Parts: sequence; C-alpha cells; structure tokens
Amino acid sequence: MAGNTFGNLFKVATFGESHGVAIGGVIDGCPSGIELDLEAIQTELNRRKPGQSKIVTQRKEPDTVEFFSGLFEGKTTGTPIGFAIRNTNQKSHDYSHIKDSYRPSHADYVYDKKYGFRDYRGGGRSSARETASRVVAGAIAKQFLPNIKINAFVSQVGELKLTKNYKELNLEETELNPVRCPDQKMAAEMEAYIKDIKKEGDTIGGVITCVLQNVPIGLGEPAFDKLHAELGKAMLSINAVKGFEFGSGFSGVAMKGSEHNDQFNTDGTTKTNFSGGIQGGISNGMDIYFNVAFKPVATIIQPYETIDKEGNMVKTQGKGRHDPCVVPRAVPIVEAMAALVLADYTLINNSIK
Amino acid sequence: MAGNTFGNLFKVATFGESHGVAIGGVIDGCPSGIELDLEAIQTELNRRKPGQSKIVTQRKEPDTVEFFSGLFEGKTTGTPIGFAIRNTNQKSHDYSHIKDSYRPSHADYVYDKKYGFRDYRGGGRSSARETASRVVAGAIAKQFLPNIKINAFVSQVGELKLTKNYKELNLEETELNPVRCPDQKMAAEMEAYIKDIKKEGDTIGGVITCVLQNVPIGLGEPAFDKLHAELGKAMLSINAVKGFEFGSGFSGVAMKGSEHNDQFNTDGTTKTNFSGGIQGGISNGMDIYFNVAFKPVATIIQPYETIDKEGNMVKTQGKGRHDPCVVPRAVPIVEAMAALVLADYTLINNSIK
Amino acid sequence: MAGNTFGNLFKVATFGESHGVAIGGVIDGCPSGIELDLEAIQTELNRRKPGQSKIVTQRKEPDTVEFFSGLFEGKTTGTPIGFAIRNTNQKSHDYSHIKDSYRPSHADYVYDKKYGFRDYRGGGRSSARETASRVVAGAIAKQFLPNIKINAFVSQVGELKLTKNYKELNLEETELNPVRCPDQKMAAEMEAYIKDIKKEGDTIGGVITCVLQNVPIGLGEPAFDKLHAELGKAMLSINAVKGFEFGSGFSGVAMKGSEHNDQFNTDGTTKTNFSGGIQGGISNGMDIYFNVAFKPVATIIQPYETIDKEGNMVKTQGKGRHDPCVVPRAVPIVEAMAALVLADYTLINNSIK
Amino acid sequence: MAGNTFGNLFKVATFGESHGVAIGGVIDGCPSGIELDLEAIQTELNRRKPGQSKIVTQRKEPDTVEFFSGLFEGKTTGTPIGFAIRNTNQKSHDYSHIKDSYRPSHADYVYDKKYGFRDYRGGGRSSARETASRVVAGAIAKQFLPNIKINAFVSQVGELKLTKNYKELNLEETELNPVRCPDQKMAAEMEAYIKDIKKEGDTIGGVITCVLQNVPIGLGEPAFDKLHAELGKAMLSINAVKGFEFGSGFSGVAMKGSEHNDQFNTDGTTKTNFSGGIQGGISNGMDIYFNVAFKPVATIIQPYETIDKEGNMVKTQGKGRHDPCVVPRAVPIVEAMAALVLADYTLINNSIK
Repeated sequence: MAGNTFGNLFKVATFGESHGVAIGGVIDGCPSGIELDLEAIQTELNRRKPGQSKIVTQRKEPDTVEFFSGLFEGKTTGTPIGFAIRNTNQKSHDYSHIKDSYRPSHADYVYDKKYGFRDYRGGGRSSARETASRVVAGAIAKQFLPNIKINAFVSQVGELKLTKNYKELNLEETELNPVRCPDQKMAAEMEAYIKDIKKEGDTIGGVITCVLQNVPIGLGEPAFDKLHAELGKAMLSINAVKGFEFGSGFSGVAMKGSEHNDQFNTDGTTKTNFSGGIQGGISNGMDIYFNVAFKPVATIIQPYETIDKEGNMVKTQGKGRHDPCVVPRAVPIVEAMAALVLADYTLINNSIK
Repeated sequence: MAGNTFGNLFKVATFGESHGVAIGGVIDGCPSGIELDLEAIQTELNRRKPGQSKIVTQRKEPDTVEFFSGLFEGKTTGTPIGFAIRNTNQKSHDYSHIKDSYRPSHADYVYDKKYGFRDYRGGGRSSARETASRVVAGAIAKQFLPNIKINAFVSQVGELKLTKNYKELNLEETELNPVRCPDQKMAAEMEAYIKDIKKEGDTIGGVITCVLQNVPIGLGEPAFDKLHAELGKAMLSINAVKGFEFGSGFSGVAMKGSEHNDQFNTDGTTKTNFSGGIQGGISNGMDIYFNVAFKPVATIIQPYETIDKEGNMVKTQGKGRHDPCVVPRAVPIVEAMAALVLADYTLINNSIK
Repeated sequence: MAGNTFGNLFKVATFGESHGVAIGGVIDGCPSGIELDLEAIQTELNRRKPGQSKIVTQRKEPDTVEFFSGLFEGKTTGTPIGFAIRNTNQKSHDYSHIKDSYRPSHADYVYDKKYGFRDYRGGGRSSARETASRVVAGAIAKQFLPNIKINAFVSQVGELKLTKNYKELNLEETELNPVRCPDQKMAAEMEAYIKDIKKEGDTIGGVITCVLQNVPIGLGEPAFDKLHAELGKAMLSINAVKGFEFGSGFSGVAMKGSEHNDQFNTDGTTKTNFSGGIQGGISNGMDIYFNVAFKPVATIIQPYETIDKEGNMVKTQGKGRHDPCVVPRAVPIVEAMAALVLADYTLINNSIK
Repeated sequence: MAGNTFGNLFKVATFGESHGVAIGGVIDGCPSGIELDLEAIQTELNRRKPGQSKIVTQRKEPDTVEFFSGLFEGKTTGTPIGFAIRNTNQKSHDYSHIKDSYRPSHADYVYDKKYGFRDYRGGGRSSARETASRVVAGAIAKQFLPNIKINAFVSQVGELKLTKNYKELNLEETELNPVRCPDQKMAAEMEAYIKDIKKEGDTIGGVITCVLQNVPIGLGEPAFDKLHAELGKAMLSINAVKGFEFGSGFSGVAMKGSEHNDQFNTDGTTKTNFSGGIQGGISNGMDIYFNVAFKPVATIIQPYETIDKEGNMVKTQGKGRHDPCVVPRAVPIVEAMAALVLADYTLINNSIK
C-alpha cells in the first residue's frame, strides 16, 4: 500500500492510526523562503479538532503539531518538513465490539481482507483522524499561495439545503456558527437538526461547497491531470465522500449548450461561469467552485447486528463519542486538500514558464 | 505539461491532436501472456467512432488502430505496446473562425494563455478525439481482466432520466439503440429528443452510469489513492465531464446513518449497497456503480459573439459536424477509463500478495 | 513492466522491439514554443545508425523518424510528441539459433523467466535498437537547452585509453573519425584495434566520457534525486553499461581531503574540479563530467555451447552483423540520456523559481 | 524540491537536518504481516552511529528510533510506518565559521544559490546524518526479504585495496573490526592508516563492495528501470559517492566478449559471473555484486581559505569532530539502500505474477 502520498512537486506523505502513537507526515517539495505562521496552522487544526462545539464528537484531543525539520529561523528551507501530532487518547478505550466483528459501512472488513489483520482501535488508519495531517500540510500550502482565497462552507445537511449560491453569501461569516454555514438562519436550522439527529443516536450526511478565488490562469495539466480531475480525486480521498461536481455539475446535464456556454467579456473573463473556472482542465481565471457530498457517518449509537471474523451473526451496540454529522469538521479538510492541489499545480505550471 | 500519462503499474501515455498526423499511445506495464483479440479492440473503437448513427457527428474517420510493439505471436510480451490511429481527416477544413478567436466554453483561450499558442485545428489536443487512444488502452485492460464485467450506459439526457436502477435493467440491451440506454422505450425518447436538439443547432448534456461487477475484494490504496478517488479522477479527466458520484452519491447526503449503513450477510456480502462496492477506498466485492455527468457540448451551430486574441468582440458562426449530445459516444470511453483503473489497481494489489 | 518511462516533468515513454513493426515513443512534458530543427534530430539518429562506418554493424536501417503530434507550424505546442521509426529489417532473418536457446550474457534467459516467453527476433525489446527512441527524445531535449553544451566521446577501447583529459582535447573533433575519439592519433589506433577484434569475430568494451558545460547552478534534487544519481541511473539504463563515475570518480578514493577539496575563487567558481560540477547533488556551475563503462558486446561470431529452454546443452554459432565494439555508436545515446536528465531537472528547478 | 522520496511501491520519504529537532521518515508501502524485530533495526542504526570506534567521529548521539504508526501487536499493518530519531546534539555548537562562508567541496554554496538561504548548522539537510533515516527504512526492507543476503564491506581505503574477491572472503567476519573489512590483516592496515590520516587532520576516500545473494530471478524493469540502474542511483544518492560499478565494471571494458560472456550450466546458473547477477536489467539468480566509490570527507581539521557570501576571500579553520574516512560507517547505509531497491523491485515483480 503506497497510496499515502499525494502530489507531484508539492508532495505529502502522511502516516498514523487513530489510536497509535502519533499521526503526521512529510511535505517534500515545499519551496523555500516562506515565513510560516505556525499559529495559523494550529488554527486550521483547531477548526478540525474534536470537541470544538456541541454538534461534533466530544472526544478531547489537543491536536498539537510538532515540526521536526524544514524550517529555519521561521522560514521554510526547501527541505522536507516532517511533523507529528501525538495521539493523547490512545489507551483507555474498550474495543471488544470492534476487535472481532465488522462494523457495517466501515472499512473493518476490507482491511482484514486486504491486509490479513488490522489495528482495530478507533478504526486505525481508516479513521478520519488521518485527515489532521492533511490539514497541517494544507495550511502550509495555503501560506505558499497567499493570493488565492480558499473558502469552503456547509451548503447542505440532510434535506436542509442553501438556495443561495456562494456569490449571494458572505463567506467571511462561515466561522460564526458551529455548522460552518455562512447563512446564519440556515445555520441555526442545521444546528438544531444535527442536535436532533444526535439525540436519536443517528447520523446525517451533508454537502460542502468550496470556492477558489484569484487562481491564476493556466493551472491544470491535460489530458489526464486536468485541474478538476485532481481536485475531484483530492476530495474523493476524504473519508465519507461520495460525490464531487464542479461548475454546473450534475445540474448542467439538463442545460442546452446555448444556455451553458459562458460568453466572453473583452478582458477574457466570462459573463456567466457554468464552467466553474476551468476549461479543458486548465484554470481560466474565473472563480472555481465545487460541491463535495458526504454520506452520514457510519457509526451510530444504536444496537445493531453484524458479522464476526468467522461469519457468525453477532449483536452489538455502537459506542463512544462520534460526530452526528461530519461536514462541520470537514470544512477545513476540504480547504486543505484544495490548497494541496493548487500548490502542486502552481509548481508544475511554474516549471514551464 | 506531463499530464498525459495515466496509471502507475498499468501505465498509459497518450499523444495526438484532432487534426495532426495521428493519435495514439504507449501502454507501459501490460502483463505478458494475454492473447489479444484485436477485433474486440476495434469493436470498442467503433463504439466511439464518429458517424456511427444519426445522433452523433457525421464526420467520417475509420479509426483503424495499428500496433507497433509489445505483441508477439498474438500475445502480449510484457513490453510496452505502442499504437497509433492515423487522422484521415486532417487537411480539408476551414478554421478561420477558430484560428484567431476563442470559442466560448472551449479550451482555446486557456491553451493560448498557458502555452503561448495552439494547434487550433479541430480543437487540437483539447478535442475529445484524444479519447480514442484511451479506448484502445482500455480495451486491452478489459482483456487483462476477463472476469470483471464493465458496463456503462446512458441514464440521462437533458431532463430525460431513467428511474430504474441498473439492477432493474438488462445491461446487455445497451447496444440495441444508438443512444446506448438499456431501456428501449426511454432510449427512443432520448433519441427523438437529441434529434430535436440537433435540428436547433443546439446541444444537450447527459449522465452515464457505469457498473463494475465481479471486482475482487481488496482493490484500492488508502488513504489518498482510494479506489473511488482514482475512478473519479479517471472520469473527470474525460472531456465535458462535470461531476462524479458513486454508490448513494449526492442523494446519500439526505440519508441517516441508520438507513445508509449496509448490513452484512454472513458471507460478507451486504443486504444493501449504498456504499457502491467500496469501503474505506477498498473494493468489498459488491457491485461498484457510479454516475458521470456530462455538460452539453460547447460547439453549437448557431451564430455567436466572442473575442479574438486582441480582445475585440467578433461575430462568428458555429460550423462543422458535431455531436448534439456526447453521452452515446462517451459510453465506451467511461468503460475504458474504468478498465484502466481496475487494471492498475489489480497489479498494485497483486504486488502485496 | 512499467519501466519504459523516464523523467518526471520532461517525461519519455518508449516502445518497440528490434524486429517488430516500429520503435518510438511519447515525450510528455516538452515545453511549448521550441522551434524544432528536424534535421538536427535526424543527424543525431544518423550518429547512432547501423552501417555508418566499417567498425560498426553493417545492418541497413534508414532510421527515419516520423512525428505524429505535438508540433504545429514548426514549433512544439506543449502537448505530447508522439513519434515512430519503422523497422525495415524485420522479416528476413533466421533466428533458429536464438529461438529455443539462450545466448550467453544476453537477456534471453531472464526475459523467458520473467515474462514466460519472448520476442526472440534480434533480441526483441532487450536489443539496443530501443535506444534510437532515446536519441530522438534526447535530440529534442538538446534543443530545449540550447545554451548547454553536451559532448560525449570515446575515451577508452579495450586497453587503449586516452591519457589526456577533456580539457586537453578539442571536443569539436570527435566526429572526425568513426570511433568518435577526439584525439585523432588515438582514434586511429582504436579503429585498427576494433578492426582486428572484428576479424576474430570477437568484441571489446570501452569507455565513453561525457562533458556537460554551461549547466546553470541549481539543478539537482537532494536527497535521493541528486543530479549525479539521476545521471548515473540514466547511463546505467543504456544497454551494456557496467559502471558510472563522475568527477574524480573511482580514482578519488585514493586522494586525501586536503588534495581533493576544490578551493573557491571569489566568483564562486573553483580552482580545481574534482567534484565534477556537482556538490551535494546540485550543479555548481562548473563543468560536469563523467565516465560510462561499456562491456564487450555479448554477440560474438564464434561457435559456442549454451542451453536450450529444457536445460539441454546445445552447440550453436553466433551469426549476423553485429558491432565489434559498441562505444562509437553509443556516444549519441549517452548525450541523449544526459540531455533528458538536464531537461527534466531544468523544469523541476524552474518550478521553485 | 521533492527529491526526498525513494521507491515506487516500497516508498520512503525522509526528512530532517543535522541539527534540527529530529530526522525520520515515512515508509509508504511496506506489506502487512511482517513481525518486526525492533532490536535488529536498532542494531543497524548502531552500525552507522557516530562514536562507535576510534576511527569515526567522536560525536555522541544515541540515535534511538521511535515508531509512530504502521505497527500493531508487533507486526506491520500495511499502513505507513512513520518514525523519527531525535537530534540530541542540536544546540551547543559554534557555527560562525560556516554561517557566512562556504566550505570547499561541501553543499553550502549550492544550497544558498538554489534555496536562497540554508540551515547551516552541521550542514543541515546536506549532512550525512540524513542517512540514518535510510538505515531505519532499509532495516525494515531487510526483514521483508529474509531470504536475501545483503552484505557490504570495505574493500579499499586510500591505496589499500583488497586483492581477494568476495568469494575468497568470509563476509561474516566484516563486523569483527571497526573498519568493516572482512580480511582482518588488511583491516588492521586500514585502521592504522585511517588513524594516521586523522592525526594529520586530513581525510581519505574508500570503496565499499556489496554482495546480494539469493536474489530471485526476475527483479528489474527494463528499459529504463533496470535493476542495476536503480541500484546505481540508490548508491549515488549516498553522500560522498563518486562512482558505481557492478559485475566486471570498469575492468570489463578491457575484456573481449569471448572472455566476458558467462557460459551457462544446465540449471541456468553460469560458470562465471562477469555479468554481476543481472542480464538486460533483470536479476538472473546469480550473486549480484557492485562497488561504490566514496571521496575523502570534505571537512578537514586544517586552516583553509574560502569565500563568504559576498565573495570575499576569508581565512578559517576546520573544526569539530568528523570522520577521517567515511566508509566504515557507510557500510550499513549501502546495505540499507540495496535493501530498499530489492524490496521495491520485489513488489513490482510480484504484481505481474
């Protein structure tokens, strides 16, 4: 399994299981001379951290990152940046209900089949805890790209869906509520709904919309490495993601070409932006926007039947402190992955200038 | 631009512009000893070929593939398979309306900005003609995986959408109509609709659904190279694609975990399959299914205004023979890309056995 | 076997067997806007071509390259450059002595073991004919780097070894003799010696020295992708190569640090250059120079005993038209591989500027 | 700079500077189910450690490795193995002689030119301290390949050169002396010589020979990724290496084909082994052996003149505790890199079985 490395020139390898010693990674290819704001990195981690509000898991983990290398006198040196986040939560739990049986819609079964056995504690490598490493790397990528604005927000929870598009919203208000929806009224509804779901011991899915602004023209490498193809892969690699669409997306299929075509202004911008800022796999300077669909979290706090390793049906009970809805905490992860893609494609595009 | 290579162990590099000398590719990593059915490869090419029915572009291109290497006495040798398809159509057209101006929602503008100039004839490299090389490679990948069933079909054209899911359809009837929709009644409606669109000189989008059956358990490389993440990238790299979803997809966001979780049978299969055959990025032996959204083709046979290289607004007119709807011809392309992903992940998974 | 792709950003995939339909490749990542001198490419191929003099194999192959894509109006477009060279020589030979038995010190045996069978005609993929594709790609890389001077020459044949170093020679005189040794007197001795060897039906090894001048400071990516490490890999991937050394090389091991250290001049150049133009894996602006050791060609025109597929000892006889010494024809191959490495590392280095 | 990642399927990313917080790495792709002997890993680190004998640098660093992930109940899980080694030695030194001036034949100058500035403490990333991470990864690779015997030893120091080849030596006696030369008499001479060199404040080069036994037939991926090409790159990426040769190497150039060809036995082994266990880039089951040339360490404890950042000539003095000869400590590094190459190529070869 060599699938834990992302990117070509701005390359990140991550490691770590939910309840192992630590998670972390190596950023291989970060350019030199970036004055890193370490607090800003920690801020991103805090946006993803458990326990940050009442609608997320109440686990306590400080998620403090330690940097090992690649920085000198406050700046990146161009050498690899190694980092780790200690797991402080690793010893105390009871995993008997997970150890020998397979939780439905979790990766337990396939890990056992693929690798022969697994670190079952808290889901091991398949836990979304791994994404904290992505957030660290993405926060550094963001600082490499200070002119690009990357804003993700929750646009749907269950059936509750924003009808306004991103231009009608003030994206600076996303962090004003624990849902991370920039429409405060909708946010309140979503929050109440998530609390209800939580009371049931159930979970619910959602959608995150992400907007990338001030992306220079020219990022993207056709034919296979189109910018949106890599963004799609990046998003689909996040735990619980089931779908990705950009620009007009799935709704564009019902449009005619005469409606969908984005007419040019004389400065090369376009009057509409159904294309979503990308033509032929290459950024065209317009806003890039896309939606990412998250399924409901598989861990529910309800009794359920499942099978054990020998294929016997067993009764068990979901336990522990889990997220009733993953999207509020996934907002910084979506932004981090977008930042990693943009950083990589910026370097690739620089190479031919 | 080194983005024309796809895959890690079953690796394909493609080349070629719409109206250059030839298109083609190199398959680097196809295992040895596969008895290649060359006719089956040509059959796949014919499914993608222009001029095959009244609802696709009426251009005439024989699309005959010539193999240069990697085959001996009818079998693959394990060495790279080089191939090319001559462009027979390359000289005769009038491109004055494309040469100096940028067609809306095409890649003309970004290619000029990224590369300084472009081969404007027929869209050059950004033309979907490039996908014929993918079909050749995918057809070989299919033969490497004889036990896996790969079936794509058109499930939506404009607002016309199949309400049956793939299990309620006979996928062997997909090729019975030019739309490639396995429901013959719906196919007839779609065909009539596409003809109407064509008369208007307009175009319309659509959705292709693809089903992968008999995929062994264990394909997929978390964390970043999850099977569905790579499938998503593969699909999003196809011209005109705007979205990808697998399993419950975007509709899964409105489900509760208690509904969405796939309960196990004692043999490890699951009672439902909202997961879409993939857990934690690894195939679980159930059917893999996904949807791919295609926008309406940007070339419309109508007058339009656009800008030239100097930023002047110019009036022009869409010309030539183009597809009113891309999905009928894109079905074999979706299958080809799925086959390439499965071939690559099969080799990767074999490596640890 | 996905080992037929070289480079990261300036990436080349090659294909083709000695006696298949054609050999060729795809250059994925050549920057746009290079006005290609196609004659210069053919000139490089002619330097590698069989039949060019009396001391090389007398096979006749025109080695004419056809370009399929990536060029428009005489310039590279930034899209992949596909090309092929037809094998004109593919049908007529008698391979009965190769088909069922393994030639000593050839790849016949290992190909059969690794791939199950092989295209035995003329050595198939393991033939040095494959290197013609490298020469095409390298010739394009040279044109991408017009300011860098790449000069290889023969510095040793058997025991005949140049005592002058490259600075004492006029490298523009390399092409004045068929051996490609810039010292005309030594070249004449080498030529006579190779002719003697040929008369015996035997073969002899040699060394090629290569000098890279005007390489800008900064090429090379520590820790693993040091410039000399990639140059070494590139050279060792050429057929018949047994060794690589740069700068002081193997003779440097007997030197003391106080002798070997290159003292700086005030402009950053160094007074000596035992380092060979590379420090810590990064070019320092001084001349890069290295030696490449070639073994004697394995095909000798003498009777020999070997084993067949069943492990029986069989008597046979070397046949055909082969090179008595490979180094004269390998000079352009060494240059081509050096050019490919420099092109790739130039793009990589550009990315962080 | 994304050059800190080695391997394709058994992939290692390393990080860390000589005097930063820690060095370490991520192994992405180690197969699951290997019962790791952690003591054996520490033993390898101890072979590389400073202060282990009187002929190596007297710096004190415990070099204790901490594993973060990828292990569960004593076995590898198939998920990435993160690890770090704290630098305990990082604060106390005086670097004023390095900070503003460039040491001759070190990487100081090129790092400043490439990255704009550098972590000058102890050489930063360009220090051979980085290789400790390779030793950890290589020690794990060795345990993945228990049947392959990997033995490196010192075969030359300065002019003192073993005349016996590896078959005439008992490689199990390599560790009996601090030089790591299996011939005890020669080892004593080398040791005395190194002590003399050290007294002079000078340094001396050397050669390490490495033998790989019981390598299965079939490892290696022609054309570019030949087994010896990747071994060569791996060795050339080690600090201070100037050359690589395998099998007959540079001495093979003076041999005739009739002498050099390895005649087969009926079981597929060969009577001689000038090929060095590799044909056409693929292992043939015979012993693989190669030589690696190391230059004299650049740091000498003598006064010297050099330039500062502004190009002024300055007088300074080599300080600190440095190795008079690098080869004794480089033996485990050579073995580690060989193990990494073999592990990677084993996985690649498995993929097509």
